[in-house]
Amino acid sequence: MELMIYVPVVMAVIGLLFMYVKRAWVLKQDAGDGKMKEISDYIYEGALAFLKAEYRLLTFFVIGASILLAGISFIVPTTHILIVVAFIFGAIFSALAGNMVMKIATKTNVRTTQAARTSLPQALKVSFGGGTVMGLGVAGLAVLGLTAFFIFFYHYFMGGAWTTTEQMTIVLETLAGFSLGAESIALFARVGGGIYTKAADVGADLVGKVEAGIPEDDPRNPATIADNVGDNVGDVAGMGADLFGSYVATVLAAMVLGNYVIKDMGGSINDAFGGIGPILLPMAIAGFGILFSIIGTMLVKISSDDAKEKQVQGALNIGNWVSIILTLVSCYFLVDFMLPEVMTMEFYGEGAKEISSMRVFYATIVGLVVGGVISSVTEYYTGLGTKPVLAIVQKSSTGAGTNVIAGLATGMISTFPTVLLFAAAIWASYAFAGFYGVALAASAMMATTAMQLAIDAFGPISDNAGGIAEMSELPKEVRTRTDILDSVGNTTAATGKGFAIASAALTSLALFAAYVTFTGIDGINIFKAPVLAMLFVGGMIPVVFSALAMNSVGKAAMDMVYEVRRQFKEIPGIMEGTGKPEYGKCVEISTKAALREMMLPGILTIGFPIAIVILGKLVYGDNNQLIAEMLGGYMAGVTVSGVLWAVFQNNAGGAWDNAKKSFEAGVEINGVMTFKGSDAHKAAVTGDTVGDPFKDTSGPSMNILIKLTCLIGLVIAPILGGHTEPVSTIKEEVKKEIQVTVNSQNDQLASAIIITTKTVNGKTFTETQTISGTLQEIEKKANEINGNK
Amino acid sequence: MELMIYVPVVMAVIGLLFMYVKRAWVLKQDAGDGKMKEISDYIYEGALAFLKAEYRLLTFFVIGASILLAGISFIVPTTHILIVVAFIFGAIFSALAGNMVMKIATKTNVRTTQAARTSLPQALKVSFGGGTVMGLGVAGLAVLGLTAFFIFFYHYFMGGAWTTTEQMTIVLETLAGFSLGAESIALFARVGGGIYTKAADVGADLVGKVEAGIPEDDPRNPATIADNVGDNVGDVAGMGADLFGSYVATVLAAMVLGNYVIKDMGGSINDAFGGIGPILLPMAIAGFGILFSIIGTMLVKISSDDAKEKQVQGALNIGNWVSIILTLVSCYFLVDFMLPEVMTMEFYGEGAKEISSMRVFYATIVGLVVGGVISSVTEYYTGLGTKPVLAIVQKSSTGAGTNVIAGLATGMISTFPTVLLFAAAIWASYAFAGFYGVALAASAMMATTAMQLAIDAFGPISDNAGGIAEMSELPKEVRTRTDILDSVGNTTAATGKGFAIASAALTSLALFAAYVTFTGIDGINIFKAPVLAMLFVGGMIPVVFSALAMNSVGKAAMDMVYEVRRQFKEIPGIMEGTGKPEYGKCVEISTKAALREMMLPGILTIGFPIAIVILGKLVYGDNNQLIAEMLGGYMAGVTVSGVLWAVFQNNAGGAWDNAKKSFEAGVEINGVMTFKGSDAHKAAVTGDTVGDPFKDTSGPSMNILIKLTCLIGLVIAPILGGHTEPVSTIKEEVKKEIQVTVNSQNDQLASAIIITTKTVNGKTFTETQTISGTLQEIEKKANEINGNK
Repeated sequence: MELMIYVPVVMAVIGLLFMYVKRAWVLKQDAGDGKMKEISDYIYEGALAFLKAEYRLLTFFVIGASILLAGISFIVPTTHILIVVAFIFGAIFSALAGNMVMKIATKTNVRTTQAARTSLPQALKVSFGGGTVMGLGVAGLAVLGLTAFFIFFYHYFMGGAWTTTEQMTIVLETLAGFSLGAESIALFARVGGGIYTKAADVGADLVGKVEAGIPEDDPRNPATIADNVGDNVGDVAGMGADLFGSYVATVLAAMVLGNYVIKDMGGSINDAFGGIGPILLPMAIAGFGILFSIIGTMLVKISSDDAKEKQVQGALNIGNWVSIILTLVSCYFLVDFMLPEVMTMEFYGEGAKEISSMRVFYATIVGLVVGGVISSVTEYYTGLGTKPVLAIVQKSSTGAGTNVIAGLATGMISTFPTVLLFAAAIWASYAFAGFYGVALAASAMMATTAMQLAIDAFGPISDNAGGIAEMSELPKEVRTRTDILDSVGNTTAATGKGFAIASAALTSLALFAAYVTFTGIDGINIFKAPVLAMLFVGGMIPVVFSALAMNSVGKAAMDMVYEVRRQFKEIPGIMEGTGKPEYGKCVEISTKAALREMMLPGILTIGFPIAIVILGKLVYGDNNQLIAEMLGGYMAGVTVSGVLWAVFQNNAGGAWDNAKKSFEAGVEINGVMTFKGSDAHKAAVTGDTVGDPFKDTSGPSMNILIKLTCLIGLVIAPILGGHTEPVSTIKEEVKKEIQVTVNSQNDQLASAIIITTKTVNGKTFTETQTISGTLQEIEKKANEINGNK
Repeated sequence: MELMIYVPVVMAVIGLLFMYVKRAWVLKQDAGDGKMKEISDYIYEGALAFLKAEYRLLTFFVIGASILLAGISFIVPTTHILIVVAFIFGAIFSALAGNMVMKIATKTNVRTTQAARTSLPQALKVSFGGGTVMGLGVAGLAVLGLTAFFIFFYHYFMGGAWTTTEQMTIVLETLAGFSLGAESIALFARVGGGIYTKAADVGADLVGKVEAGIPEDDPRNPATIADNVGDNVGDVAGMGADLFGSYVATVLAAMVLGNYVIKDMGGSINDAFGGIGPILLPMAIAGFGILFSIIGTMLVKISSDDAKEKQVQGALNIGNWVSIILTLVSCYFLVDFMLPEVMTMEFYGEGAKEISSMRVFYATIVGLVVGGVISSVTEYYTGLGTKPVLAIVQKSSTGAGTNVIAGLATGMISTFPTVLLFAAAIWASYAFAGFYGVALAASAMMATTAMQLAIDAFGPISDNAGGIAEMSELPKEVRTRTDILDSVGNTTAATGKGFAIASAALTSLALFAAYVTFTGIDGINIFKAPVLAMLFVGGMIPVVFSALAMNSVGKAAMDMVYEVRRQFKEIPGIMEGTGKPEYGKCVEISTKAALREMMLPGILTIGFPIAIVILGKLVYGDNNQLIAEMLGGYMAGVTVSGVLWAVFQNNAGGAWDNAKKSFEAGVEINGVMTFKGSDAHKAAVTGDTVGDPFKDTSGPSMNILIKLTCLIGLVIAPILGGHTEPVSTIKEEVKKEIQVTVNSQNDQLASAIIITTKTVNGKTFTETQTISGTLQEIEKKANEINGNK
């Protein structure tokens, strides 16, 4: 079964092939008539223009970071120059994934509109088909890239056969470059896309809806194309890059910890997988997850054109649960098959324990359960008609102020069950199988990423399809059909965000554990003041990052507002529909603003860990142990605070959004049915405006912030001494002194005092021994002791 | 100089005497005529009614907590039953302090109004006089209570003379009961008062200003008295209890760490202060701080009736800086005088270091600098006319949504300099003198609490004075004068919050350090999964606490809205001023709602640490080390997250408030002067509504939440093994075996092999020694070795 190493690659290729077939099917669908096609082409070109500009800018970043990494690889003996290659490929793969999902999304939009002209089942088939292509594309590329590079490095550094955990560490450290590349691009894609989409959205709304009084998605609004482009570059390309990064990081972290499992078991194990079963396992789970996602996506269908949200949601749920349950079953067999029956595992502070490998399976159950429960929790706090959302609706009757307070409070309270769930998951999966268990819980949760992304992505597709229907002035029933899909999509978007943050939290912890093991420190002690100080600093970063992202949206939106106002004023006949708005200008402005504004948060994320190491080096010089602990404290601070702020912002934003939406069907406030256009609705719109950057810009960025921070730590780890200079080295120095005295009464008899001074790590032990015998005997013994035989 | 122990008591008594004199002077001032007196009496009675109801409820809490503490003292040998006495007195003193400041505040309000009829200098003199009484009362009671109990316990447990650090630990642990009592009451006072004041405020505004269209403080509004009562029970009594608790906790933490300084120096030191100089030092600094505060308050005066905000602020600044500089100078002499010139201090992970005691002085400089800088930082983010506040004003032009986003972002960004400042302070003061340095930094900062509180308290007094002027329909210039004071008061309130959070942060860290030393664990390692899980849980608590507090305000405000609406409908002639509103009903509703709503946050704060210990015991049984680390992780999470959320909420709230106020004088938005009543102003009012619970309810509660959490940890510490079973005990067992052999060639000569087996803490060392000589000599030596001489 040594060929097991190739199985994930095969699965990934199968996934990509299936994606290719599905893609061909989607593209074969009717793309509609003139006006629809025209608008769709505008969106496609706008989105592509943004990605091109973004990638052009990021090329400089990749070159700069590569030079830095190359520098590190020259200084640190265990960091190989190949990390630069891995980094560049990680970046390219991530960009590829983002580019691919964006292209298919913009192509699917218009085809969904066209399909919605015939029936709802057909519209779902097309939009979910597009989602499936995106899901499989991202997951397939992630597994393919990671496993292919692993196989390459495994052969390059170890000749394709197990040598030592130290050698494997070099393999995995080099592989970390791939993950770092992917996650770096994801950060910029998420932040840039998030700023773009909200700037265009807010800009279009403020001038179009509020000032000019024209409806949403009205073709007379110059920002309307930019708004639709935003949906694609933010929700779609950003999310694709995000999940791509998560997938890679999760599997990588599990592999690193798998290597340490082998170390704990004596440095090598005998199994049918070339002795690397624990390292291959997460890749295998990821590979099979692609297959089960394919099966799951096939089950998503509805038959009746009269179906409502409930039926559509039901169809999605069936597909989702089938893929999750299949993954669970496969985890059982894979764990049983690939891991030694009994494993020795080092539990920090409790020593080595013998555990059954089945406990690793239990850890994967924890991961799948968390993935399921978190969706329900998110749904409870943000879903239409739930108690918290209805409470926000009620509070809208007393104005925007009370609506905003209620929304903030809902987001804040939602951290309670979420964090308790995470804490329990960390604790339980650790109790089952150490940090390897935590990492595998995350891996199992992420295994069905393809399915998750498909479910997530069909929402924005339907949203856009509705927009195209509106702009092309199609019959009302088309919009009604896309609205049903859009409404379900809003729920799946919220639960998808819960899933993303859960996976990011577990992944970060696994990366954090990998970091501690990489650096070889014996834990992170927050009772050391510099470590505690860095915990504070780390906790602050997500808050400031979020603020920067929110402010960026504000600034970019202002640019858009001025441009739309200018066009309304300067283009004759624009309001009458005779003058043509300059859509391109607005797209350009959004692009420029998003790229400009994504820099500062990006620099903050990447710069701080590096600054801490430099500061630590300046103050503590060679005390790498302490510097590593400081960086670890920082990572912990970012993770804890980042998870909190992600949950808070995502759920507050989701709750406000649906509180506003509640008015569309009408809600009862103090016994009176209240609808769109009422004062309460206006208050709810204000809440939604606040929630928009929360849920679409700063909130989702938190995932990448915490993962990227932990990844940077992992790449820096070797600089901080780490395993190159293990702290457990025992420096032993032995000095012997022999004093021989001849017996005064019998000169043939002598005695000798042997004073042995042993210095171990600076501590001195002295031992005195006296021997006696004949002079010859003494001399012989003394020579023996001195090593001269 | 053994009498030094009594010096702080003397200082406290001087402070209280001075307070008494000042109080008599304030009360002697003219309290105005009929209408004014009537309103003032309503406020006085309403506030007193609330405090009475609150204290009645808290009596049950104190009894329950006392039983729990008594239970602990029976189980844990080192926890003495006297802790219950200390706890009850701590609670009583805190209630006394709250009661006292509240009474004097309500008495000063109306006298300030009356004084404002004559001149501004006189109004400042009266209002600041009231503030001085409050400041000295709180500080005097704090120092008196703490030092008196210390002296009592010192004599009770140690006979008034140094014995061992273990004995002193028992003294200080019992004293921790005093601090726990004070902080518990402070929590309820802060939260209950915060809910009361905002419920009444929002309720009065929503129905009075918005629905009925009558101005603020209009006597026709039934909630107007409740609103004014709220200012007193929230801003005044709540703040008084808060600072009382901080003061006690800070000094206590420094004393605990002082005891460990003595331990590090070999368990006893020789100094002129009975060998307890390092423990007395923080008390002495606090005592002298009272004197310098008195001097500072004397310097606060203005001479011209034409003075503006700037002159008033200038007068306050002079008094403040003089007291701070005098404290700094006194710190130099006290450190020089009371500490051994060279101290041995254990630095965690770096071993023992010899440091000059002057480094403790440097740490106090750090504290004073942080106190000063934090005020400037807070002022920058929240002050009238500053860049961030003007940016919020600009954003108001595009609606409430963008105003709210800008305010949130400002609060969030303000964590950046603040947290960096705290992190630097922790690091620096620790680097100077370990955690003792951190505690003394906090002590020095808190030394001028009396002055700080005087500056803080005169704001709400002036605010109330303005309200009374309005309600009594006094001439316009009276209100103008009180408005000047109120405006300055708003700034000092914001900077006071910055000061409070800075001191709470440092105090919590000192308590955290005391906790670690109490439990005897060797640090808190967040690489242990259960500890990390608790770090997450701890981080979540401040967020949920804030949400609960905010929701409580919403609920209580709704109760008020319904009552005011009822009165407007049912009382004939109320709007024409002929029918008399039932003020008492509104006061009662606020009181009930506040008391009902303060329970849940209180239970959350007190219950969680206890729940963690119980959970830990259930899972880990006797592994107290791990449970102690888990609780420590929780404490760190609460502290880090609590500081962040305190800064975020206080500064966002302050910034919104002043953004709204900016419209009163008019602001330029996009080149147009904009005033009150404009759409932009309405948007700013919405922001202020959101900010109100932020800055007056949930934000300020964070201080107490983090301090109380750390205090509960400290009181629980002995249960978790702690010093009752010190981990550093060396269990040494020595076995000796002597094998004597007679020389085969000469039976008078013999040799002996002495095998010494030493077992230290489970590790065995074997030593072999051979001696030779005549049989008699051997026998003699063998006997010697066996200890039989």
